[in-house]
Amino acid sequence: MSWWDERSPARPVTVEVASNGSESVDKNAAPEGSSKNTKESKAAKKAERAAQRGKPQAVTQPEAGDPLGSQYGDTQLIQSRTQAAETYLSITSLSEEQNTQIALIRGRVHTVRGKGKSCFMVLRQGSATVQAILFVDDKTVSKGMVKYASNLPRESIVDVSGEVHVPDAPVAGCTCSKVELKVRSIRCVSRADGLPFELADAMRSEEDLKREDAQFSTVQQDTRLENRWIDLRTPVNQAIFRVQSAVCQLFREALLSEGFQEIHTPKLIAGASEGGAAVFKLDYIGQPGCLAQSPQFYKQMAICSDMPRVFEIGPVFRAEKSFTHRHLCEFTGLDFEMTINQHYNEVLDMLDHLFVYMFNGLKKHCAAELSTIAEQFPVQPLQYLPKTLRLSFQEGMKLLQQAGFEPDVMGDMTTELERELGKIVKEKYKTDFYVLYRYPLAVRPFYTMPDPEDKRYSNSFDVFIRGEEIISGAQRVHDPALLTERAKVHEIPLESIQSYINSFKYGAPPHGGLGVGLERVVMLFCGLDNIRKTSLFPRDPKRLTP
Amino acid sequence: MSWWDERSPARPVTVEVASNGSESVDKNAAPEGSSKNTKESKAAKKAERAAQRGKPQAVTQPEAGDPLGSQYGDTQLIQSRTQAAETYLSITSLSEEQNTQIALIRGRVHTVRGKGKSCFMVLRQGSATVQAILFVDDKTVSKGMVKYASNLPRESIVDVSGEVHVPDAPVAGCTCSKVELKVRSIRCVSRADGLPFELADAMRSEEDLKREDAQFSTVQQDTRLENRWIDLRTPVNQAIFRVQSAVCQLFREALLSEGFQEIHTPKLIAGASEGGAAVFKLDYIGQPGCLAQSPQFYKQMAICSDMPRVFEIGPVFRAEKSFTHRHLCEFTGLDFEMTINQHYNEVLDMLDHLFVYMFNGLKKHCAAELSTIAEQFPVQPLQYLPKTLRLSFQEGMKLLQQAGFEPDVMGDMTTELERELGKIVKEKYKTDFYVLYRYPLAVRPFYTMPDPEDKRYSNSFDVFIRGEEIISGAQRVHDPALLTERAKVHEIPLESIQSYINSFKYGAPPHGGLGVGLERVVMLFCGLDNIRKTSLFPRDPKRLTP
Repeated sequence: MSWWDERSPARPVTVEVASNGSESVDKNAAPEGSSKNTKESKAAKKAERAAQRGKPQAVTQPEAGDPLGSQYGDTQLIQSRTQAAETYLSITSLSEEQNTQIALIRGRVHTVRGKGKSCFMVLRQGSATVQAILFVDDKTVSKGMVKYASNLPRESIVDVSGEVHVPDAPVAGCTCSKVELKVRSIRCVSRADGLPFELADAMRSEEDLKREDAQFSTVQQDTRLENRWIDLRTPVNQAIFRVQSAVCQLFREALLSEGFQEIHTPKLIAGASEGGAAVFKLDYIGQPGCLAQSPQFYKQMAICSDMPRVFEIGPVFRAEKSFTHRHLCEFTGLDFEMTINQHYNEVLDMLDHLFVYMFNGLKKHCAAELSTIAEQFPVQPLQYLPKTLRLSFQEGMKLLQQAGFEPDVMGDMTTELERELGKIVKEKYKTDFYVLYRYPLAVRPFYTMPDPEDKRYSNSFDVFIRGEEIISGAQRVHDPALLTERAKVHEIPLESIQSYINSFKYGAPPHGGLGVGLERVVMLFCGLDNIRKTSLFPRDPKRLTP
Repeated sequence: MSWWDERSPARPVTVEVASNGSESVDKNAAPEGSSKNTKESKAAKKAERAAQRGKPQAVTQPEAGDPLGSQYGDTQLIQSRTQAAETYLSITSLSEEQNTQIALIRGRVHTVRGKGKSCFMVLRQGSATVQAILFVDDKTVSKGMVKYASNLPRESIVDVSGEVHVPDAPVAGCTCSKVELKVRSIRCVSRADGLPFELADAMRSEEDLKREDAQFSTVQQDTRLENRWIDLRTPVNQAIFRVQSAVCQLFREALLSEGFQEIHTPKLIAGASEGGAAVFKLDYIGQPGCLAQSPQFYKQMAICSDMPRVFEIGPVFRAEKSFTHRHLCEFTGLDFEMTINQHYNEVLDMLDHLFVYMFNGLKKHCAAELSTIAEQFPVQPLQYLPKTLRLSFQEGMKLLQQAGFEPDVMGDMTTELERELGKIVKEKYKTDFYVLYRYPLAVRPFYTMPDPEDKRYSNSFDVFIRGEEIISGAQRVHDPALLTERAKVHEIPLESIQSYINSFKYGAPPHGGLGVGLERVVMLFCGLDNIRKTSLFPRDPKRLTP
């Protein structure tokens, strides 16, 4: 029997607690299996949900005189009074071998439905769920105990001790389907207030939402983000941030194995970190300061400091008023910088190694997470080649022209053209991931090394996933005279970047590197439609809380 | 023969290039082995150094008509013209087995001394050094080639191709002592300007500097920091930042193996992150914002979001006007937060596992780095116990009282008393690393869980290394009503922390955690005297550049 199925609308039965303590089942609740969706039933459902969301009637302590009164009731505030005497188990560790054993679980009340002398609950830990059941038998479960359990607000945290039981048929809708728990004691550790939205509504698949007969409440992005601590509890969000954590581990693993070292560069700086684009300014204890828009200057200074291969994972800040699906005002940058012997192809080779390692690693270590995400947001898995495709910018322009577009061949691509080129490349080369190199010099930052043959071009590259730009990189100018000249062309006040230029004056090795946004990697690898989905607490021009 | 010995003062011989191209050795240079330190010789040395530091006379191209002209001269700007045809070797890979083979090295000119028909150089890569020699023989080395090499400014980056040669006696003063290079071609990739200070001066051991007959130039901290890209090239600084990188890897390894996940919390926030202490304020696209003083609130919100064990390595910002040896305005925080079942001892157990793992790991993986650091800054290795000592705050106060001090037993300890207690503990328990728990509630942040027995105390702890506080942690208040009450006691405006409080309203698990500064860990583990030594580009109330 299942009370939790993310594919079907929640149909909770409200249990009213009468003043005499007896129970009465809400007669308005739709009968089991009913598929009637009349106006009335919808209204009833709405009222029902509103009631559920309102402050639930608190039954916090055992009924007076209940001989099983010691088996239920809210705990004292957990305040380090004693060490835990019993071992808490994880839901994922439960198995049939534990049949008839007692297991102690701390979890959330995912769903709960009391009905007369019984109560069915689903307990949740992360994405794992298990059914817990209570039937009044006066030996192990009292009426008061069922009432207490039935009235627990969803999302409350409870300590449940129960007998592991192998049911006749697997429990549908729970991740732990082979066993359930016959509750022997239940104590609430932390009570939840009425919820601003239903977790079940936040978990529906895009396909279900698109169905013509869909009757679901949808949860708007702003509502989710306002209550991010609830939104993040959905299986997809649990999965997304496991993937995000894995991307960081894989990024580091790949680079550490190639002799890179991790650095931490300052985020508080004097000038604008790359000149130009919008920076957050602040008063630095009496002198003007700002937030680094990237670790660019400082990872290059690390190169000049004889750290030949460095990487950093850290926040970067952009005070841009961009409200697109792919821009944030604060995101996590994955950056590396390395010395090169002769050619920035050495950087591209490293990129190739790094990203193929990351993609392979994600497929291997995050298979469960990726399939959870794909269930709610159906998408084709990322297609990529063992050796990443490299096209020159000119070749890219030609492909667009051949397809009937008229790109600005010496300018930057629009987002639309990037998407179109992505489609063409996918069709022709069977990859969602490719490099476009040798961009026009004019559209790149001043520190980009010009092309040796044709000064209209540069030793730079962008990398695309699913038709969206994700990585920018280049060989950098390591000669202070040329760097000064290039800064002047870009009309960057030299005094604002003097220490950066100075760092190249005492012997500077040729070098290059790249930067990529963690949130974009996760968004595009998973095929999600908005970068706010892959930032823990996203920051956009309007959102600074929570 | 050694030209590089960090223990003896540099005694360079200035080679003047006469207008006719011939060489004349500076007659003012002190004779070899002279230990005379008269006023004149000091003055001469000073002038000599100044000359060295001045713009060196550039000999950038081969002499006209030199049949070996193709073997030396500055390279064209390395601009990705061609891929590297030859393999560049690292100094550390050179060995006697390569005797008579040709090796190509890119490195810095660490020292160079031309004398008549010969030139001795030391090439450097990171902390590794090798000797390269040129003797005019008209077959492989011309007079022009020796002149070119002899005039290379120190710290310039050169490509040297040479025959690996096993000398009769090991090369003293170079890390690669078993072989040297007989130069066959030498090309400068990037020329260094005159140096603001001598690397040799920046590398001297504290013991040498203390010697009564010390005649060395010392390099002031500000000079070092102003030219950090040179300062960071010393072996000790190379080692310090390898240790720093290792601390981060070990921190993550220990926690990932315990089921933690990495998170990235926002640094741009609306309220003051912990209320109270000085924050950097800024204009967030039209609304008031500030920089997070710690990830405290957000790692707790992650806990409420069903991420039961989280960690973060990221920048934290403190707008404090502290000019001590242990305060920075921006540093890297190592934070973790975890759910607990009953008691914050569970957090202390994790801390124990984590730090003992880190210390053991550093001893194992960074032995060479630690001994390099200890050579310049002699210190006793950190003494710690396999199971970390835990003393209650009250026990600590008693120890101080027994030793004749008069601590404020319900207040916070002064830095001096912390040091004194550190000495007492070291004497009594043979450890430099210990936990002091159950601090008075009044001196801890509002979100600290009060002690269950005595509300004057709290479920909190600090951790000390070598008598200095390094870690703060506690069980946190997970009950929104109690949290509100505590915030009021601390006179924190509730509206500024409303979303933080709200995050506990929908079921919050009991939890605790800690935060530690990366720079402090490295400083105190290595026994260094100033936190600016362990920050790549330190930020203090006066320093915002480079």
